[in-house]
Amino acid sequence: MPTPSTPGAPGPAAPTSAAAPTSDDVPPADAPFTVDDYRARLDRAAQQAAGAGLAGLLIAPGPDLAHLTGYGPTADTERLTLLVVTPGRDPVLVVPALEAPDAARAVGAGALTLRDWTDAEDPYAATAPLLRTGERATGPATGPSGERSTARFGVSDNAWAMHLLALQRALPDTSYVALTEALPMLRAVKDARELARLEAAGAAGDAAYGEILGVPFAGRRESDVAADLAALLLRFGHSQVDFTVVGSGPNGANPHHEAGERVIERGDMVVLDFGGLKEGYGSDTTRTVHVGEPTAEERRVHEVVRAAQQAGFEAVRPGAACQDVDRAARGVIEDAGYGAYFIHRTGHGIGVTTHEPPYMIEGEARPLVPGMCFSVEPGIYLPGRFGVRIEDIVTVTEDGGRRLNNTSRELAIVD
Amino acid sequence: MPTPSTPGAPGPAAPTSAAAPTSDDVPPADAPFTVDDYRARLDRAAQQAAGAGLAGLLIAPGPDLAHLTGYGPTADTERLTLLVVTPGRDPVLVVPALEAPDAARAVGAGALTLRDWTDAEDPYAATAPLLRTGERATGPATGPSGERSTARFGVSDNAWAMHLLALQRALPDTSYVALTEALPMLRAVKDARELARLEAAGAAGDAAYGEILGVPFAGRRESDVAADLAALLLRFGHSQVDFTVVGSGPNGANPHHEAGERVIERGDMVVLDFGGLKEGYGSDTTRTVHVGEPTAEERRVHEVVRAAQQAGFEAVRPGAACQDVDRAARGVIEDAGYGAYFIHRTGHGIGVTTHEPPYMIEGEARPLVPGMCFSVEPGIYLPGRFGVRIEDIVTVTEDGGRRLNNTSRELAIVD
Repeated sequence: MPTPSTPGAPGPAAPTSAAAPTSDDVPPADAPFTVDDYRARLDRAAQQAAGAGLAGLLIAPGPDLAHLTGYGPTADTERLTLLVVTPGRDPVLVVPALEAPDAARAVGAGALTLRDWTDAEDPYAATAPLLRTGERATGPATGPSGERSTARFGVSDNAWAMHLLALQRALPDTSYVALTEALPMLRAVKDARELARLEAAGAAGDAAYGEILGVPFAGRRESDVAADLAALLLRFGHSQVDFTVVGSGPNGANPHHEAGERVIERGDMVVLDFGGLKEGYGSDTTRTVHVGEPTAEERRVHEVVRAAQQAGFEAVRPGAACQDVDRAARGVIEDAGYGAYFIHRTGHGIGVTTHEPPYMIEGEARPLVPGMCFSVEPGIYLPGRFGVRIEDIVTVTEDGGRRLNNTSRELAIVD
Repeated sequence: MPTPSTPGAPGPAAPTSAAAPTSDDVPPADAPFTVDDYRARLDRAAQQAAGAGLAGLLIAPGPDLAHLTGYGPTADTERLTLLVVTPGRDPVLVVPALEAPDAARAVGAGALTLRDWTDAEDPYAATAPLLRTGERATGPATGPSGERSTARFGVSDNAWAMHLLALQRALPDTSYVALTEALPMLRAVKDARELARLEAAGAAGDAAYGEILGVPFAGRRESDVAADLAALLLRFGHSQVDFTVVGSGPNGANPHHEAGERVIERGDMVVLDFGGLKEGYGSDTTRTVHVGEPTAEERRVHEVVRAAQQAGFEAVRPGAACQDVDRAARGVIEDAGYGAYFIHRTGHGIGVTTHEPPYMIEGEARPLVPGMCFSVEPGIYLPGRFGVRIEDIVTVTEDGGRRLNNTSRELAIVD
């Protein structure tokens, strides 16, 4: 589903490809991640940190930690769990002693050192030595004029404020910056096994779409069709449903509409935008269907969006800017006279979450890199009347783009 | 369930009772919270902030926001949602424009002002004026020696680091402290309607215990009984199950054991510790049962724990220190010669979460106040052999303590 967003603040240079998968070496979707996968991701994260001038990365439970280690505590509590990634040193996972056995079972644990802390310890004091740079460990580092240098760390956006405040107090000579500001592309380039999971999630979304075309629409509430979509995603292997948008008739003209009590009628356009997580990786696809025969205008608007989506897809190639994808799709809609009715960005990244960098939006000049995965989802929204949106997940290959959603983008007629 | 914890850091004086419910004025458990309930909580929070020398409170989505407003966004995302409570001013909820309609529907919304922000705005710039104190609004406040004063705000423990960092940057003259450090007792004193919900949650836990006594234990795995407990909690009205500990035989000697694949045998002691949320408020109760006839030693250990739990309960009265409850329970176990085997604190608070301040632990000298609710749950853990724990939720009344769990604390024999 689309969410409006400002692009990441101007940041360091884009990451280079560490994935560059080809269609030949894509592992099966159910291939488990190995310790080598996590080691490579941790190495790449350390390199990116160094490239951005950061002394290290502080990774909290959530998407960042899942991506880099495969570990997530069963509950994100007040007890400090923090992965410290510092260039040139082994990564260390600070973890409550009670949870250390669980953490040790994570596949990525083989690529890092566990530092457990008991309730008798101050976890921030335990963490502090890991954040001291080499010079500082042996004495205060001073600059040419005698000032102390400050080590700057990137920290997961969703790290708890109480942990950050305690680290700021324990280490006055450090400073912190949110990861999406410092390293927005940290998780943007997917490796081959991640791509395989995203492809499998996309295929499951496609299978759900294939089935939903057969359910009755006319006379049922949007929320009923949304429940069908959720059940289908689960049936096709999703562990979590994040959204099931059913925007019928005028509701389709609001891209933020989810699904409500409106009863779908014959003659309605219906926007279907649904996705969630399968094996830890996201799906997100949109098709717009019509209940019964569409009018000529409805067909025309749908065709403009279809052509815009195709143009966005064709703009995907290594080295193109993210905003080029937006411009290509938007250009088709503007040329058709509907520019004022395309009111959101063209796409967002997807991985261990269903919305993340990179964003396909004007102003995002960073280049596309093989292995990136994101949505291409232009739309036209005619207030009070109807909307059309078409969305595929696309990955960047050496040659261009490859779709991870492959159902027909023609206007489907449903009952 | 018990979790070891250090007590809150020495903080401001304990809150005064705003609840002081008696058994006569307890509303029915299903009485919805009213705007007046939330207004009273917001007023009390502002008073506590002023008493602690804070310029205000910054409340993030999660338990704090639920308690003070009844509102929680469907997903805690990177978009800033923040309640600003400043003594002497109306509370303001900063909320993304897309979510403002949802926020406006929360019951507590009638007690505050909504300040929505669109994607075209910087949410921190929108928030900043709310954090400027009166003097600062008209010019820089300076101290006697000309230094600028710094306004200090309490911030929800789980607020996102990215939001805190952005506020620190937007407002260099502010400083921040985690709420559990600055105001650990913010949510500790429950009002009458909260007490009614905690009582209903406790009754549901009691009903689940009554039913579990009838299921077969011997020959089934711990995880099977745990699943039964979870289903019972849901059947008796819980919306969320937080834990279902089934510690049989030697597993019962590890207070952090949850439930595993061990097959329960005749002759086992079995610790049952289960709880979750019902109507937004927590339950948490423990009973230890025996499969078949217990030995004399098992009966003796159980009786020591029962007496310790009773002593802890009887120590509950307004003005007693939290640590007095721990001392009373621990004293009984020490006198019986089992002091080394009681390896966790005696209790924790409960409310919109199942573990929160106040903690009944040595070193926590703050006084009990009518309306506080917490567990009294001593235990004895004999490594490699068995464990016993007995736990009730207890609330402080004007006269002493009142149990919210009322099943028999005698050793039950199960099959």
